[in-house]
Amino acid sequence: MRTFRLVIACPDRVGIVAKVSHFLASHNGWINEASHHSDDQSGWFFMRHEIRADTLPFGIEAFREAFAPIAEEFSMVWRITDTEQKKRVVLMASRESHCLADLLHRWHSDELDCEIACVISNHDDLRSMVEWHGIPYFHVPVDPKDKQPAFAEVSRLVDQHQADVVVLARYMQILPPQICQAYAGKVINIHHSFLPSFVGAKPYHQASMRGVKLIGATCHYVTEELDAGPIIEQDVVRVSHSDSIEDMVRFGRDVEKMVLARGLRYHLEDRVLVHGNKTVVFN
Amino acid sequence: MRTFRLVIACPDRVGIVAKVSHFLASHNGWINEASHHSDDQSGWFFMRHEIRADTLPFGIEAFREAFAPIAEEFSMVWRITDTEQKKRVVLMASRESHCLADLLHRWHSDELDCEIACVISNHDDLRSMVEWHGIPYFHVPVDPKDKQPAFAEVSRLVDQHQADVVVLARYMQILPPQICQAYAGKVINIHHSFLPSFVGAKPYHQASMRGVKLIGATCHYVTEELDAGPIIEQDVVRVSHSDSIEDMVRFGRDVEKMVLARGLRYHLEDRVLVHGNKTVVFN
Amino acid sequence: MRTFRLVIACPDRVGIVAKVSHFLASHNGWINEASHHSDDQSGWFFMRHEIRADTLPFGIEAFREAFAPIAEEFSMVWRITDTEQKKRVVLMASRESHCLADLLHRWHSDELDCEIACVISNHDDLRSMVEWHGIPYFHVPVDPKDKQPAFAEVSRLVDQHQADVVVLARYMQILPPQICQAYAGKVINIHHSFLPSFVGAKPYHQASMRGVKLIGATCHYVTEELDAGPIIEQDVVRVSHSDSIEDMVRFGRDVEKMVLARGLRYHLEDRVLVHGNKTVVFN
Amino acid sequence: MRTFRLVIACPDRVGIVAKVSHFLASHNGWINEASHHSDDQSGWFFMRHEIRADTLPFGIEAFREAFAPIAEEFSMVWRITDTEQKKRVVLMASRESHCLADLLHRWHSDELDCEIACVISNHDDLRSMVEWHGIPYFHVPVDPKDKQPAFAEVSRLVDQHQADVVVLARYMQILPPQICQAYAGKVINIHHSFLPSFVGAKPYHQASMRGVKLIGATCHYVTEELDAGPIIEQDVVRVSHSDSIEDMVRFGRDVEKMVLARGLRYHLEDRVLVHGNKTVVFN
Repeated sequence: MRTFRLVIACPDRVGIVAKVSHFLASHNGWINEASHHSDDQSGWFFMRHEIRADTLPFGIEAFREAFAPIAEEFSMVWRITDTEQKKRVVLMASRESHCLADLLHRWHSDELDCEIACVISNHDDLRSMVEWHGIPYFHVPVDPKDKQPAFAEVSRLVDQHQADVVVLARYMQILPPQICQAYAGKVINIHHSFLPSFVGAKPYHQASMRGVKLIGATCHYVTEELDAGPIIEQDVVRVSHSDSIEDMVRFGRDVEKMVLARGLRYHLEDRVLVHGNKTVVFN
Repeated sequence: MRTFRLVIACPDRVGIVAKVSHFLASHNGWINEASHHSDDQSGWFFMRHEIRADTLPFGIEAFREAFAPIAEEFSMVWRITDTEQKKRVVLMASRESHCLADLLHRWHSDELDCEIACVISNHDDLRSMVEWHGIPYFHVPVDPKDKQPAFAEVSRLVDQHQADVVVLARYMQILPPQICQAYAGKVINIHHSFLPSFVGAKPYHQASMRGVKLIGATCHYVTEELDAGPIIEQDVVRVSHSDSIEDMVRFGRDVEKMVLARGLRYHLEDRVLVHGNKTVVFN
Repeated sequence: MRTFRLVIACPDRVGIVAKVSHFLASHNGWINEASHHSDDQSGWFFMRHEIRADTLPFGIEAFREAFAPIAEEFSMVWRITDTEQKKRVVLMASRESHCLADLLHRWHSDELDCEIACVISNHDDLRSMVEWHGIPYFHVPVDPKDKQPAFAEVSRLVDQHQADVVVLARYMQILPPQICQAYAGKVINIHHSFLPSFVGAKPYHQASMRGVKLIGATCHYVTEELDAGPIIEQDVVRVSHSDSIEDMVRFGRDVEKMVLARGLRYHLEDRVLVHGNKTVVFN
Repeated sequence: MRTFRLVIACPDRVGIVAKVSHFLASHNGWINEASHHSDDQSGWFFMRHEIRADTLPFGIEAFREAFAPIAEEFSMVWRITDTEQKKRVVLMASRESHCLADLLHRWHSDELDCEIACVISNHDDLRSMVEWHGIPYFHVPVDPKDKQPAFAEVSRLVDQHQADVVVLARYMQILPPQICQAYAGKVINIHHSFLPSFVGAKPYHQASMRGVKLIGATCHYVTEELDAGPIIEQDVVRVSHSDSIEDMVRFGRDVEKMVLARGLRYHLEDRVLVHGNKTVVFN
């Protein structure tokens, strides 16, 4: 069912919900799902509505125009999206296939509502799997001595494919600051630890060294500071002394897949609102 | 902070939220928390608002009167509660102390917002623990050959203490149908299995016989049919071949405590809406 | 690293471990992993050893011969397996691809240590995905009016491919009793509920009707009684009133995949010992 | 049932299990439970046996003497304990009662097999609750300008009560290095975060600032470095944007209670072996 998603953040005050819901009701809009959050600490208010498109008398452009005065009145940061305009996703990976294969299968079986524009990798290993799905594969090797040309090419490909979202599905290169800035709020990473524990390289080795009894994975937006961006989703799995690092890596793969798939889904469904370095996730 | 909680269920249609939120905004009511749910299968709509009492120009009685026309217009099943009028809870237990001790401690440390009117038990074992908390304890033995007098006394005590809620905290007697009917929607039980598995007696033995790998507990409203009422909350814990029935009982106690405490909390905070044999839990 | 796995069940008594470990030590066998379980209720003892093959002076046949007298002395039900002789797996599926795709990817990325002999399906939908992995695909349609020929063909294919294990990866047909008997202890099913709740068809619909707050999946050996065989592994995921049946199906797919993959892995690694209708799982 | 627990750590080599199990079998010892672990990284071997005392021909002293030559041969770090000699526990707390009340109730209902020698607190708030259980309560205020006298008194009390274990049940003071050293491996702390995240003060505030989606608790042995000792047990609970710091504190209390109770139980049952800064936990 086609819906419009109205996503709003603004300073909290009396009357916001009344105004927005009156607007929707006066146009006969049927609300499938509504979520609100008042943040006491910041004094901001967040809301998301999912409205049946066929009950409204206008399309998304007319909606945007009609709603603009309310948005202005309440100083809203807002957006409205149409489920018929599928988000375009660029996937990036390196050699490890589990996250990529998982996302591709979810997309292939209509579980993820998006278009996958292409896959970019610094290795050529996963080409055949990707191409079987009918998706273009770009091999952009990264020269460790001069990474700039590779990232220029990555930027060019992302732009050319008009990506709404870039997903680092275990892409083992650190994006340069200019890319982080250019696509702020649009690059999703899966880090293979329960952040803020074990930032950076080889988190399972770090976890084994520290002797933790649970390991995890974190899906977050990429910012310039490594593994420090707003967290969308996390999960953990129990480990014990009898689990080697290899076992942890294996258990971890399953957590990574699940956490990334959930995080991406929330993003695609406009369920994630970033405020400062934190997220509101209406799931 | 004193709040009013407005809890509504009604047939779904356009304009409900607009009307309710307009009513609240027009009286300057500050909404701390708002939750909505449209149930596609039943065609019903459910909502709960938590409103700062000090922002409203009237008390709960005037609210009730002012809101009544809206409630009628939309055929609402509704209630409004005032956090200053604490719900009165009667706890019932038998010999096992873990759920009772857990609830008493949460109440004692101000985690559960209610008054505990009294404890009723068919045994005298837990008297000292209860009385240390300054709560009256009534020992009402149940004669297995004629249970009627005991349950008449239980009814009398529940009425006399003006209970809003009765909590069966591992009370090992089955309530007779007339009590189930008289207090429909007001009696909360903790069953020591993951319902609908293992209804009735000795669920951990049943679980051990079946060789399940997780055991659980279920908090539900009591109805005439044993262990079949609307479920409020459930949880599970992992077990293995190496766990004896005694181990399961021990693990299970922790799950029972947690699930009952969460379920009771949801009820006390007016977060549970019963519809048919299912619940909407705005937690 | 090549290992031998020695798996033993026998009536419990003093001296079993001493005898077995003396046997291993006297042949200089290096034990990588050892697990024991004494079952008080049945009076049986279970053990599993994983021994480095390169530390033993003989191969698996000579091991079998040398160990036989001990096995006889203690009335052991036992087996020894060699990790170099990979188990042969036949996968069966219908239209839903998630479990099949998950197992194929794990196998493809060397996470599952087995040979996948072939895939049998009553539909032709998944052929291309399977064949991309280089695995033969057999489409054996089941005539609802006369299922016997189809199951005769299934039996023939399983035998022809010398299957050690048959995995029902959401194969939506009930196997006839003669197949259940012929491959007792060798057919693994994933049922999409937390057994013993919601046996049979449409368990997510049953779960939605009952209003449970967690849904699950169960990996078990197939026996003649539907969904009643020994349980290998189970897990659950939280749901709420806001989740439709479609949401449950979607959440459930992830649980099904994980539970089946874990259950199959335990089986392939000889970690599962069936005793009566229960399992010992040395994981 | 009275058992002896034989707990061993030693450099790994062929024949350890054979030797130990032969020793036990030759004295007719019935093994209730046996656990082994070979640590590839350190090259050490760990084992724990629980043996029915009534099947052995001697008491614990004679056992110790008879076993000593084997221990020497294999350079074992080892101990044997008798379940009839209950461990003596000193509990320390400050103002928050949840962990203390939880442990006292478990002890009171015979779930924790130990003697509680006394409770020491830097506040007097919890005296009545403790004394209701018949346990001595010592109020040892800590002068922030000169903490030394308080910790001298704590040391004296711990020694006087012949404590085998000291449990910091949300004791909000940092123990001085000399106490950490004097009772190395005997002081158990519960830290209210998922370590190594959020070391030190106000971890729930830190967690809220970082916007994590799970919060946790960690039970560990106290060492001189704050919150850095060997981890015994951890667990987490899901939180969301809608949870305030107060909600996190409340959820956290339940995780803290559970994790501390499990960790202490493992310690009391001699299931924890410390090696370097990590633990082997045979649970």
